[in-house]
Amino acid sequence: MTEESPRRRRRQSAREDFEARALNQIPWRNIESPFPPLCPLSDDQLEAVHEASLRLLAEQGVEVMSVRARDLFRKAGATVDEASGVVCLEPELILQLISTAPNEFMLTPRNAGHAIRIGGNAINFGLVSGPPNVHDCLRGRRAGNLEDYCSLIKMAQSFNVISFLGNQATAPQELPANNRHLDTCRANIVYTDKIWNCVSIGAGRARDAAQIMALSRGLTLEEMAESPGAITNININSPRKLDETMAEGAMQMAELGQAVIVTPFTLMGAMTPVTMAAALVQQNAEALIGIALTQLVRAGAPVIYGGFTSNVDMRSGAPAFGTPENCKANMAGGQLARRYGLPYRTSACNASNTVDGQAVYETQFALWGAVNGYGNLIYHAAGWLEGGLVASFEKLIMDVETLQCMAKVLEPIAVSEEEFGLEAIREVGPGGHFFGSSHTMERYKTAFYEPLLSDWQNHENWEIAGAKDATARATEVWQRVLQEYEAPPIDPARLEAVDAYIARRKEAIGTGEP
Amino acid sequence: MTEESPRRRRRQSAREDFEARALNQIPWRNIESPFPPLCPLSDDQLEAVHEASLRLLAEQGVEVMSVRARDLFRKAGATVDEASGVVCLEPELILQLISTAPNEFMLTPRNAGHAIRIGGNAINFGLVSGPPNVHDCLRGRRAGNLEDYCSLIKMAQSFNVISFLGNQATAPQELPANNRHLDTCRANIVYTDKIWNCVSIGAGRARDAAQIMALSRGLTLEEMAESPGAITNININSPRKLDETMAEGAMQMAELGQAVIVTPFTLMGAMTPVTMAAALVQQNAEALIGIALTQLVRAGAPVIYGGFTSNVDMRSGAPAFGTPENCKANMAGGQLARRYGLPYRTSACNASNTVDGQAVYETQFALWGAVNGYGNLIYHAAGWLEGGLVASFEKLIMDVETLQCMAKVLEPIAVSEEEFGLEAIREVGPGGHFFGSSHTMERYKTAFYEPLLSDWQNHENWEIAGAKDATARATEVWQRVLQEYEAPPIDPARLEAVDAYIARRKEAIGTGEP
Repeated sequence: MTEESPRRRRRQSAREDFEARALNQIPWRNIESPFPPLCPLSDDQLEAVHEASLRLLAEQGVEVMSVRARDLFRKAGATVDEASGVVCLEPELILQLISTAPNEFMLTPRNAGHAIRIGGNAINFGLVSGPPNVHDCLRGRRAGNLEDYCSLIKMAQSFNVISFLGNQATAPQELPANNRHLDTCRANIVYTDKIWNCVSIGAGRARDAAQIMALSRGLTLEEMAESPGAITNININSPRKLDETMAEGAMQMAELGQAVIVTPFTLMGAMTPVTMAAALVQQNAEALIGIALTQLVRAGAPVIYGGFTSNVDMRSGAPAFGTPENCKANMAGGQLARRYGLPYRTSACNASNTVDGQAVYETQFALWGAVNGYGNLIYHAAGWLEGGLVASFEKLIMDVETLQCMAKVLEPIAVSEEEFGLEAIREVGPGGHFFGSSHTMERYKTAFYEPLLSDWQNHENWEIAGAKDATARATEVWQRVLQEYEAPPIDPARLEAVDAYIARRKEAIGTGEP
Repeated sequence: MTEESPRRRRRQSAREDFEARALNQIPWRNIESPFPPLCPLSDDQLEAVHEASLRLLAEQGVEVMSVRARDLFRKAGATVDEASGVVCLEPELILQLISTAPNEFMLTPRNAGHAIRIGGNAINFGLVSGPPNVHDCLRGRRAGNLEDYCSLIKMAQSFNVISFLGNQATAPQELPANNRHLDTCRANIVYTDKIWNCVSIGAGRARDAAQIMALSRGLTLEEMAESPGAITNININSPRKLDETMAEGAMQMAELGQAVIVTPFTLMGAMTPVTMAAALVQQNAEALIGIALTQLVRAGAPVIYGGFTSNVDMRSGAPAFGTPENCKANMAGGQLARRYGLPYRTSACNASNTVDGQAVYETQFALWGAVNGYGNLIYHAAGWLEGGLVASFEKLIMDVETLQCMAKVLEPIAVSEEEFGLEAIREVGPGGHFFGSSHTMERYKTAFYEPLLSDWQNHENWEIAGAKDATARATEVWQRVLQEYEAPPIDPARLEAVDAYIARRKEAIGTGEP
């Protein structure tokens, strides 16, 4: 029998209590905003931005680097300068071209229960995508790799509040660049049954990704055109340049009836003039021409207006996110998308170098702008750090906590005679407390949001439990999530079909481009 | 001549650059929201809460522990049970009593340039108030004391985004409890020229504070009744109990024509039933009876509807803040205040034990709820930590950064032909950049919000500069703020009058109550 101090016993019991708790998360649901969107532009200002952007498209146009895309624009009536590649469109033409895009649509992954609505007041939160590096507090900062890629996807699958995965949570840099998209697509199929983004650098990668999504659903590409499940994001190379690979990827996806997001890369001060008004004008012109391209390929193809307007640090040129300007642009972008009846994609980013207060407040400003702007797809909502250079495991957990809170904020308040509890108030009487009242006992387990990460112990108990800050606790949470992760079941025949496709394609690609 | 490594030289230069930067802050202004308020209650729900709260006041009433207050209610037509002290009011009576309260008013401190508007879409951010302890990362956690009290006030004075100070930033525990309010009032007069809250535990303290504010403005109490400058917050001791000292303090302030905030202390699950609907009903009933009391004393006295509804942790009973429930209650409270044409006070709190991600995201949820709910006075917006047990120097700096960002978000977007910069876009051409364009050069210094605390260096430079997280940088910032602090000028004759008053009162109070 060993002797234990009371303090040590308390410490142990606090830890056991923590470990015994289930990971608190909210159930899967399609989140919708009950609030009207917030609009930083007045109606007149919105129209002025709209008109200036149409003037920009008509008078200065956009350099389109794909021959096929230029041909499509020329045949539709645009003015194309073959020497420079610049395409100009009259206002009537651009408005007519984008008019065939749907207001809203569903995206259905291999688990139809995880289908998501894109449009209206639907709010979807996505996993971080794009970072070349990953970081966690146990193993430090390192180059992106397939193992970490899989871990990030497993976490996105684990949390109900994340309803889609962006394009590559991190780049698996150890794999050959020309066919690694096949490996990441396979990982997507195995580790998640939610919507994931296709890499669409060129038509080959886009087609591969769409084909793999279709195979995982037991559909042909033709069948999937009736029920889209693949989505990609293309960026305009701002200012006013649509790269060839991006155009080809977008056209391939549209041809297959799959969803394309067109996101101008408009960092104010660098890729646009330094004013918000100019950035919105340029963003709008660039987004509309990309959207028009998808409709030229296939009228009615699902397409999304993307906004990524933020500012740079004018001292260094470094990108900044979660700034007041970024927050307002996230809302104003939504106004523009709704102006054309288009779904809207935005982001919740930050520029901090570590998982600290800055990382959180910047993300919150971007997130509140995104939600108040009706971001139907909110990219990078979980795990983004260092301006997008790092996918952070701890940040991902911290973000999930705040996304869960946001989802609860967007739930309506229940109001009824029962909920008013006037009898409970009478029973307790002036100066009493409600802990033991039957009204409380019947409801207390589900009355309030139960946090995943927040620690509400008093100071003494918090110190006894190790005085861990939110970042340190996040390290414990992500380890546990990965430990408890279970892969979503998949029909073995479909996985075989995916594997056979990947094997054929790897052979066909060889050392060339896909 | 000593040799220096290039790395060391870069480190030094990064530090010098940091130190050379001015403290970035936004100019003083009366902040207003350009957005409509967000309303989690539907119109029908709002009316149902209103009606249930009137039923609660009529059928169950509130225990009023002041004889004078009960007399006033009885003479006005309320039903008073002297045995229990319970006061019940019929719906018509309570609505008639509160109808004389003004929709909005100005509060003017000793510097008229720092007057603030209370009502409508005016948004004011206040310094933390009430904590028994203080904390900073250099000196650790300690009991509140006058020196720290003064430091906190100096910081509130230094930052333009803070437009008022709540009741005692921390309790100066080394001073005698019966007359320390005179010392804190004097500190308020010396170190700030903004609006500060009067302690109103009983009529004596309230009158002292109002008198000191009047003397600092060169006014008599009668003159100040025409131009209110004193404000206090009283809490209802929920459920349904108005303590004697609170009632006396409120009546004294109202009598002097000074502003009273009535804030029920409604933590769901402890002081109210566990449901949001019940908490809002109880909050509303409790706030309205306190508001009615001020109008009974002096019809037309400035009064503010206070909301503090949050939830407790049902595992431990500990208060939680910045939860989804708290965020929604902050918005719903605004709906109720506007239902009666009353100004609204709410808060931006958190329950974290340290200045970490949790402290920030909880504060952000409360803050966005407060701003979207049209919080005319947002208490505890800078420096609150540990559920209100600690005033934190680092948290104060982090909060100021986010309040400044919020103020910028609430600024309208400038839209004009000049701002559109179409000529700059033409000059730069597709694929170029705007760093050197004349449109940028003319505007870059003021184009974007310049952060007080955020660090946007790239990872390598950030590491060279010491890899300081936001909390560590906040330690540097508050030291610098205190170093650079300059007391606002005061007419020596007025300060003498204040000092003479304080000396007289200390003698009169002796060892008794004020």
